[in-house]
Amino acid sequence: MTNPTAAMLVIGDEILSGRTRDANMHHLAGELTKQGVDLKEVRVVSDEADAIVAAVKALSDAYDHVFTSGGIGPTHDDITADCIARAFGVGIDVRDDARALLERHYESTGLELNPARLRMARIPDGARLIDNPVSTAPGFTLGNVHVMAGVPLVFQAMVASVVPTLTGGAPLLSQTLRVNRGEGDIAAVLSQLAADFADLSIGCYPFQVNGAFGANVVVRGTDGGRIDAAVTRLAGELGL
Amino acid sequence: MTNPTAAMLVIGDEILSGRTRDANMHHLAGELTKQGVDLKEVRVVSDEADAIVAAVKALSDAYDHVFTSGGIGPTHDDITADCIARAFGVGIDVRDDARALLERHYESTGLELNPARLRMARIPDGARLIDNPVSTAPGFTLGNVHVMAGVPLVFQAMVASVVPTLTGGAPLLSQTLRVNRGEGDIAAVLSQLAADFADLSIGCYPFQVNGAFGANVVVRGTDGGRIDAAVTRLAGELGL
Repeated sequence: MTNPTAAMLVIGDEILSGRTRDANMHHLAGELTKQGVDLKEVRVVSDEADAIVAAVKALSDAYDHVFTSGGIGPTHDDITADCIARAFGVGIDVRDDARALLERHYESTGLELNPARLRMARIPDGARLIDNPVSTAPGFTLGNVHVMAGVPLVFQAMVASVVPTLTGGAPLLSQTLRVNRGEGDIAAVLSQLAADFADLSIGCYPFQVNGAFGANVVVRGTDGGRIDAAVTRLAGELGL
Repeated sequence: MTNPTAAMLVIGDEILSGRTRDANMHHLAGELTKQGVDLKEVRVVSDEADAIVAAVKALSDAYDHVFTSGGIGPTHDDITADCIARAFGVGIDVRDDARALLERHYESTGLELNPARLRMARIPDGARLIDNPVSTAPGFTLGNVHVMAGVPLVFQAMVASVVPTLTGGAPLLSQTLRVNRGEGDIAAVLSQLAADFADLSIGCYPFQVNGAFGANVVVRGTDGGRIDAAVTRLAGELGL
């Protein structure tokens, strides 16, 4: 049995210009891994409708789930919802249930539900709302695309609403062995290990600390016993 | 005149699994922006040959420059160079100049230039080497694709070798106005501003600090005077 697959689409000029760092990819990756869903690809595109629509179509066709981050606020540059509707060829308008959520929220905060804020109730036809316990304006799921806010706190709350509902496969387990030798010294041993444990994924991630080379060897798979066996053999062969 | 465009391809299971955070995207984005090259897209794909080859082809066709990060070390999971050769339909083998670099380096460090390390001298036919002042093993440029290491220190050194040699357009300038009001309060003003300054890009990035909402309005463009004018008008309209 193979795990379901997922992709992430980050919408954000502010990341591509180097102004801010993306903070959501790492969080989503960790949560999907725990759920047994394999994140296979991430794309970051600019706030341009054609780029967003093309990426949504490509990723939605290629993977079981797509998660988007960013571009669902009240301002003129928040065009994600309209792009999702276009990608799926459906209409989009202010929806009563989403409007009701915003009305209650703004009544309680004393802020005005002005036309800009009402844009956040624009939901593509046929979508399911995603709960936003942080700031109310909902995300939504249309087809296999889950549309979420870019603000990390809100993104994380929406991930917490959606990811546990997905049918996952076996969670990906991993063990890491830290080796204080250069990658080149252990490459032959790793290569043989990877051949003998073809059911596991064996990655080697070099680092440098105070001028000394080392590497983290990460053994991943769904069978904890096999991972133990591989790590034990590796540690023995490297004299650790 | 429009600026040249670029894309980045991050090769790394360790990022998609949530084990590590990508650290190179933010650095490259900032350096390209300074150089007047517009980073339009980033993709993160897993260490699978088909995924890497497909992404290299797509990005190389769509953008003026492509920068890859990761997968050029000595271990079995370092397959980027072979994938680049496949994407361009050229051969790949150990090359004398790259081998000479490694020989000098390993002689001076006393480490053995074993078959695994020699893999790092495998360079696709027709490529130009990229200097690696940190750990010697070179990157390379083939066509419009610049192939770089994933280790941040090495990646940054390679970026410093390549990016200043690119013909850039006008550097992208920006000013940020921090507004202590919710996005929804300022959306109408921003929308009118974006319409009146169509030559600029005006982004609104909400934040939450201690429960209070605010937004950074970022005005970007290549004409500093126009950016000044837009920010001055916005500050006036918001009473700042």
